[in-house]
Amino acid sequence: MQERKRVCLRVAYDGTAYCGWQVQKNGRTIEGELNRALSELTGEEIQVIGASRTDAGVHGLCNVAVFDTRSRIPGEKFSYALNQRLPEDIRVRASKEVPEDFHPRHCRSRKTYEYHIYNAVFPDPLRRLYSCFTYVPLEEERMSRAAAYLVGEHDFASFCSAGSQAETTVRTIYSLDVARDGEEIVIRVTGNGFLYNMVRIIAGTLMEAGSGRMEPEEIPEILEARDRAAAGPTAPACGLVLKELEIEDEQ
Amino acid sequence: MQERKRVCLRVAYDGTAYCGWQVQKNGRTIEGELNRALSELTGEEIQVIGASRTDAGVHGLCNVAVFDTRSRIPGEKFSYALNQRLPEDIRVRASKEVPEDFHPRHCRSRKTYEYHIYNAVFPDPLRRLYSCFTYVPLEEERMSRAAAYLVGEHDFASFCSAGSQAETTVRTIYSLDVARDGEEIVIRVTGNGFLYNMVRIIAGTLMEAGSGRMEPEEIPEILEARDRAAAGPTAPACGLVLKELEIEDEQ
Repeated sequence: MQERKRVCLRVAYDGTAYCGWQVQKNGRTIEGELNRALSELTGEEIQVIGASRTDAGVHGLCNVAVFDTRSRIPGEKFSYALNQRLPEDIRVRASKEVPEDFHPRHCRSRKTYEYHIYNAVFPDPLRRLYSCFTYVPLEEERMSRAAAYLVGEHDFASFCSAGSQAETTVRTIYSLDVARDGEEIVIRVTGNGFLYNMVRIIAGTLMEAGSGRMEPEEIPEILEARDRAAAGPTAPACGLVLKELEIEDEQ
Repeated sequence: MQERKRVCLRVAYDGTAYCGWQVQKNGRTIEGELNRALSELTGEEIQVIGASRTDAGVHGLCNVAVFDTRSRIPGEKFSYALNQRLPEDIRVRASKEVPEDFHPRHCRSRKTYEYHIYNAVFPDPLRRLYSCFTYVPLEEERMSRAAAYLVGEHDFASFCSAGSQAETTVRTIYSLDVARDGEEIVIRVTGNGFLYNMVRIIAGTLMEAGSGRMEPEEIPEILEARDRAAAGPTAPACGLVLKELEIEDEQ
């Protein structure tokens, strides 16, 4: 019998057609598709452990999933074999063997999300699945000013939806940049972890600052309030993509 | 009774879910959706005339459609009213009244298409609907060299699929550029008109040149052959987008 090994996958997906990452009773999920494809491939009953449990409609370019197997397939060959069995909106970009005690959620990590906004008079049908449309003119300079207050270690309780199971609402944002390229605005945020809906609430709040409904200088008060009602709305899922995920102990 | 007027629409669409522009007995089309929405809106039986009858799966950012109506709705208001009645993958970006004899296919025009290629080890799920994926490394410098031979007035019979109803296969390409940005290659071509599948056959042929399966210097022979079999394959529809369409007599 083959020895047991732990394999780590790098997974990219278009979240449009899925009820999020995490397995649910009703509805297709990324994790569910990976479990099915892996179980078919190996003949074992496999359940992956994901690093980032993205929400329904959110996209990912580099999420991490690990699983244990006694399969003879070499770690680095899983990507090819899995892509044959996965739908086109999920691709395994790399696979490799990792130490048996490697757990993608019990490690220090650094995540980068991008939130895409299409700010024009009419929506662009080719961008509708991957950005949030608004015809309200947004001033990126105001958004950048608001963003600057969020960088650093803060209690982000105001930027966290109910239903979070986190022990603490303190997180560190390493960088938070707003850039416009024509009609597209990209919010790029890197941090050591994010609370439930945190990036989408940040995006919704920065959009309020950009449109003039709020002053950038109000952000410190919003943070201090430690109250979800103080921040802006949760921006739609389709604009969000998990862009980079570095895990410190990954070898 | 209101006087009859001719209205011109600028239409953007994601072609993924459609059997092309032109109305068909079976299957949804862009033209069919516009006819339905316009007929519902005006209470008249309206049939639009399109400028460019793009194929199944091809996208458009600025196609032109005209129609005649006795509706009281001002020409420039149609865009807003139609977007309420169209699916999200079709958007009318502008509308205006035009002279009654304006016909979008009986005018001199200048069209720009882009063909998008994603050239990487694994497909990117977020680009799969809007680009052609190939893992075969493409050298853009070889593609540019091949492209240069196609610029100008030529008989493009070798770059035309069977089924074309064109009177002549002579066309003029004003510019044909190949540019790489990371893993994405964009072929951008501007001309006074294109034969059936012409841009997709050009893209397929340039990809052969880029991969080394063909020499860029073979293009003149391919043109001279006036034989579809001499050129490369027809590249997939999803990579193609009608980017710009200028009509000379549009006022």
